[in-house]
Amino acid sequence: MKHYSQMSKTELTALKKELEEAFSVYKKAGRKLNMTRGVPSDEQLALCNEMLTCLSAEDYKAANGIDCRNYGGLDGIPEMKKIFADLLELTVDEVIVSGNSSLALMFDNVAVNMSHGVRDGLPWRRQGQVKFLCPSPGYDRHFTICNYFHIEMIPVAIGQDGPDMDTVEKMVSSDPMIKGIWCVPKYSNPTGIIYSDETVKRFSKLKPAADDFRIYWDNAYAFHDLDDNKSIPNIIRLCEENGNPNMVYVFASFSKVSFAGASVTCMASSKSNCEYIRKRLTAQTIGPDKLNQLRHARFFKDVQGVWKHMKKHADILKPKFKLVFDTLANELGDFGVAQWTTPSGGYFVSFDSLDGCAKRIVALCAEAGVALTPAGATFPNGNDPKDRNIRIAPTCPPLAELGEALKIFCVAVKLASTEKLLAD
Amino acid sequence: MKHYSQMSKTELTALKKELEEAFSVYKKAGRKLNMTRGVPSDEQLALCNEMLTCLSAEDYKAANGIDCRNYGGLDGIPEMKKIFADLLELTVDEVIVSGNSSLALMFDNVAVNMSHGVRDGLPWRRQGQVKFLCPSPGYDRHFTICNYFHIEMIPVAIGQDGPDMDTVEKMVSSDPMIKGIWCVPKYSNPTGIIYSDETVKRFSKLKPAADDFRIYWDNAYAFHDLDDNKSIPNIIRLCEENGNPNMVYVFASFSKVSFAGASVTCMASSKSNCEYIRKRLTAQTIGPDKLNQLRHARFFKDVQGVWKHMKKHADILKPKFKLVFDTLANELGDFGVAQWTTPSGGYFVSFDSLDGCAKRIVALCAEAGVALTPAGATFPNGNDPKDRNIRIAPTCPPLAELGEALKIFCVAVKLASTEKLLAD
Repeated sequence: MKHYSQMSKTELTALKKELEEAFSVYKKAGRKLNMTRGVPSDEQLALCNEMLTCLSAEDYKAANGIDCRNYGGLDGIPEMKKIFADLLELTVDEVIVSGNSSLALMFDNVAVNMSHGVRDGLPWRRQGQVKFLCPSPGYDRHFTICNYFHIEMIPVAIGQDGPDMDTVEKMVSSDPMIKGIWCVPKYSNPTGIIYSDETVKRFSKLKPAADDFRIYWDNAYAFHDLDDNKSIPNIIRLCEENGNPNMVYVFASFSKVSFAGASVTCMASSKSNCEYIRKRLTAQTIGPDKLNQLRHARFFKDVQGVWKHMKKHADILKPKFKLVFDTLANELGDFGVAQWTTPSGGYFVSFDSLDGCAKRIVALCAEAGVALTPAGATFPNGNDPKDRNIRIAPTCPPLAELGEALKIFCVAVKLASTEKLLAD
Repeated sequence: MKHYSQMSKTELTALKKELEEAFSVYKKAGRKLNMTRGVPSDEQLALCNEMLTCLSAEDYKAANGIDCRNYGGLDGIPEMKKIFADLLELTVDEVIVSGNSSLALMFDNVAVNMSHGVRDGLPWRRQGQVKFLCPSPGYDRHFTICNYFHIEMIPVAIGQDGPDMDTVEKMVSSDPMIKGIWCVPKYSNPTGIIYSDETVKRFSKLKPAADDFRIYWDNAYAFHDLDDNKSIPNIIRLCEENGNPNMVYVFASFSKVSFAGASVTCMASSKSNCEYIRKRLTAQTIGPDKLNQLRHARFFKDVQGVWKHMKKHADILKPKFKLVFDTLANELGDFGVAQWTTPSGGYFVSFDSLDGCAKRIVALCAEAGVALTPAGATFPNGNDPKDRNIRIAPTCPPLAELGEALKIFCVAVKLASTEKLLAD
């Protein structure tokens, strides 16, 4: 097969016509297929249905004797603290277990650092224009938080080993208004890469110009392996060892472990940071929903229970990821019009078209009833400078629907590519 | 019986000695009794135990077809929106149903108005020293929120009909830095009074100097009648009628309806305010725990179900309130050393000792193992200028323990009163 770039204008024109015809059939079929977001499928949710009824009128007390139906327990019940601590290889006084949205924890944490400063420092907002480093492509909702707080986002390239650490080190050590960086260290959203040990170590050894610089370590896919568990170095321990004990906030969530709409989440940091945060929580809330934490503790029992459960998720997800990899390889592999990642965990495949084609591909797919994450969403301010990155979220649709959506997607990619090459 | 103030020094000295002896017996007994906070009792919590198991592997979808186990549904499921709307006599687009802490909703709302302004206005914090009116005695955790955000608190007297509206009107209309007022309009915390219709109307007709002034209408005890339901005028409708459609935020909670640690809460405001808030929520959270909302909807069914359930709470609470009223009347009624409220709902009795005795009474009680809300907590910055107000929270202890605690309390009041009168 020929790479499209090697085709003559005549060949491309003929191919384009052919693709347009194929695509019009899809358009007429009027499908409704959705690959927009990292959403668990019905089958995955059903894995936890037992959790809906696992408490009883005789079972509502946590290990410390606290009645989970009543007030109290500001930072979580002991059972869930233990499970999160074990999962993250931390001690229980380094974790705060919260409600059902780790996004809310991150938003809240940025809000408070803006208005009150980290610990007893000067509020970020009083120091000038706050900036965050944003490894890109990255998670759109991190960027939305920055936007909400008028934080300037500085994109940093992300490769196979994680963010470009030369750039990160240089910027963080030279600009005291850089107050944070967003990281998804394991199965990065959307590229699916895992930060290398060296990258994690370099993060822990940063020498920030701002002593109130913080790493937002969103370990959203920490337990979400398709094959064996790939462990990454313990950032909290490393920061401690390298003289930066309070520099990192770790976030973890059961949204894609139990129920996406009704899970438990966790924030972890140094013991000292956690003590500081607990003080704020006394002003902020009556505490998290402890009954839901107890439900999780009863269902999963312990850290082994979580790992075992995650294997069941993997069994459901592996064929979906394989279908993506196979379809892309079969339909697009020979034409030199795209590159994509083949992650071994997480929720996404990151797809790069020819430069300048992503928006067009997403628009074409929409015409044929396939909803994708908006092109550009994976970059700060929705601005993908090369207009080439598309996040594929294959977890939610049933296998047959996913197959259909991918076929339509591939034709859209080919069509957009011929259009682009003819226009160049 | 003689009022203590009419006694001679000799009489008082003899009485004091007698009380000291009685009190030392209590001290030696080493009780552990708690009347600090408005916490439901075991018996009340058990009323909802069925909610622990009312969902099932076949029952997790809301009325709009949304799967409550999965993402989505930012402002609540239709069933719970309907229940809150009916309870508050509003439409469903005037309510946002959230997680388990209305305190968190209030904190969040103040945080956002400080940092971003109400709607698209200038952030409160950029306009100068923000001030809130604080009807006092009031709810300590409202004051804690103000403290956290460095908001100046201006105490306003509260009487039988609610806050002193002459003062409220005068201050709100003259000072543009007064941005808010905390109100607990029904069974006010701690006095238990209900704002009169006239007071509510006057609130809705305020002519604030600041167009971003907001009423924080914490209707925490809206459904918590001991006898018949006492309804208060609909503040949202009245504000609408009086040209202040966006001036009020209403908060309501099921913390003392279902499970204090695992309930659902609601924020209500004009349709336009709610639309504005929903936009922020998309940046802030993945949404509330919908399964817990569904649990509540299944258990209570509808607004009538809630009212019926609240009667069961009243049956449990009435004897406790009666015991407070009776004990205080029997033990203290004849001596002119105290006044207290006799509310017909809510969670508290507000107690006023002789001036300058509250701290001493609370300290004495602590010595005898009876924990009370710290004296002063019901005033901004913990400063009760007359040192006389104590909040009695009778709901949690079993009746027998409550009786013991009250007896000790009354002896402490008498002892502190004799001390005070002898020192004057």
